[in-house]
Amino acid sequence: MKLLLKIKYNGSSFAGYQFQPDSRTIQGSLTEAFSLALGFPINVTGCSRTDAGVHALGFCCTVEPKSRDNKIMIPVGKFHRAAERFLPSDISIIGEALVDDDFHARYFVKDKTYIYKISDQTALDPFLSGRAWFTRKPLYDAQIKKMELCGQKLIGRHDFTSFMASGSKIVDCVREISALSVKRSEDGLITLSVTADGFLYNMVRIITGTLLDAASDRFDESDIEGIISSKDRTKAGKTAPPDGLYLADVDYGRKIDWVIL
Amino acid sequence: MKLLLKIKYNGSSFAGYQFQPDSRTIQGSLTEAFSLALGFPINVTGCSRTDAGVHALGFCCTVEPKSRDNKIMIPVGKFHRAAERFLPSDISIIGEALVDDDFHARYFVKDKTYIYKISDQTALDPFLSGRAWFTRKPLYDAQIKKMELCGQKLIGRHDFTSFMASGSKIVDCVREISALSVKRSEDGLITLSVTADGFLYNMVRIITGTLLDAASDRFDESDIEGIISSKDRTKAGKTAPPDGLYLADVDYGRKIDWVIL
Repeated sequence: MKLLLKIKYNGSSFAGYQFQPDSRTIQGSLTEAFSLALGFPINVTGCSRTDAGVHALGFCCTVEPKSRDNKIMIPVGKFHRAAERFLPSDISIIGEALVDDDFHARYFVKDKTYIYKISDQTALDPFLSGRAWFTRKPLYDAQIKKMELCGQKLIGRHDFTSFMASGSKIVDCVREISALSVKRSEDGLITLSVTADGFLYNMVRIITGTLLDAASDRFDESDIEGIISSKDRTKAGKTAPPDGLYLADVDYGRKIDWVIL
Repeated sequence: MKLLLKIKYNGSSFAGYQFQPDSRTIQGSLTEAFSLALGFPINVTGCSRTDAGVHALGFCCTVEPKSRDNKIMIPVGKFHRAAERFLPSDISIIGEALVDDDFHARYFVKDKTYIYKISDQTALDPFLSGRAWFTRKPLYDAQIKKMELCGQKLIGRHDFTSFMASGSKIVDCVREISALSVKRSEDGLITLSVTADGFLYNMVRIITGTLLDAASDRFDESDIEGIISSKDRTKAGKTAPPDGLYLADVDYGRKIDWVIL
């Protein structure tokens, strides 16, 4: 068995998820904390990579905290207690589950959901710095509705080349977006939520930039199909900054017995 | 005329409000930003001092952005535009008002309201790190109610020596608390709110610690009067950390024509 962990992190002071020798990374911090907690080096396999400044509300990763006779050393639901005194305050374990040995945190992902938070307050909010994108002018209900209607034109199986950072080496750019919504959420922010079976590099940030361009009438609902079919990055909108982006949820398409902390 | 500013700041990476030569302070950052914006040195007079790590949602301060002929150089409601590119992202101006020349940001304060935020989530939240006090165990409605009932015994005009950090040099420790509440707020946190005509050093943090001790049955409602009358710091509860403390509001007891940004 492996241990599947659900992790929450504030990405503001990390150089992204993936390990880099001389930078503070999520993977590096997890590996170090877990190895210190267990007393031997341990590998961490993540569900995804997130860029510098991007956050997670429900990142998933596996670890194998096994003793020499191949038994899981720590009961499920107790791993966080061993690990947390070695974790920095910007990373927290929020769930634990046992999964089979063949489970792979990345390859087994069926869908991921990202959310993107936009603040339209006139004054910058020091408590949202690094955690949302500031438009500096109010977004009215009709504009938010237009963002959602335009966004919903992206739902389905498409080649999303137009929504991928130029220079990316990915060849197969077909992905399936199964859900997309744009709402003013309870925290007063405008929250874009998008669920897909995979995401191209900067895809959510380019979708967000494009929908915000739609709000300011650079695009209409009828333009979206043409942007997709052009397969041309320059036809879509600007790339939103990493600050507002959160990996919200990972769906493995199977029942996982989470112990939620 | 003077300009009265309402300021919001995330105190996490400041050594407190008051200027110190070699530390990052709110007053230092404001003075530097405003002086750069105006092109000449300017003084900032604050309503209060806050300690390292303490935040503000509605701190007030005055500035006099006057030209040589003694006229206010920048129309009210526009000062933030001049200043904001020199302000760090953890400080923001949220309101502006014109006040008379004799107005004093500190001496004219009638009441201040502080709030203290407590998180009772089991898992630490990376997005609340430095912004709340973590109890690590759930607080039930009956406990929150008990905190409020105990807290309300503090309302009125009392000598609050028992709720002042030992070693403080203040002689007159009589203050009047006009309102105190403890509620679970919409953000899921337990929020203590206390309004008084003045606060002793660490007073809100000692009140918070004492009320949390009451929640865990170290104190009952009937003990509070005795704690006050003892005038003995050791009779009250522990001092809560600065993280959860916010200067929420300043009441000058007069009409101020705020331009809210």
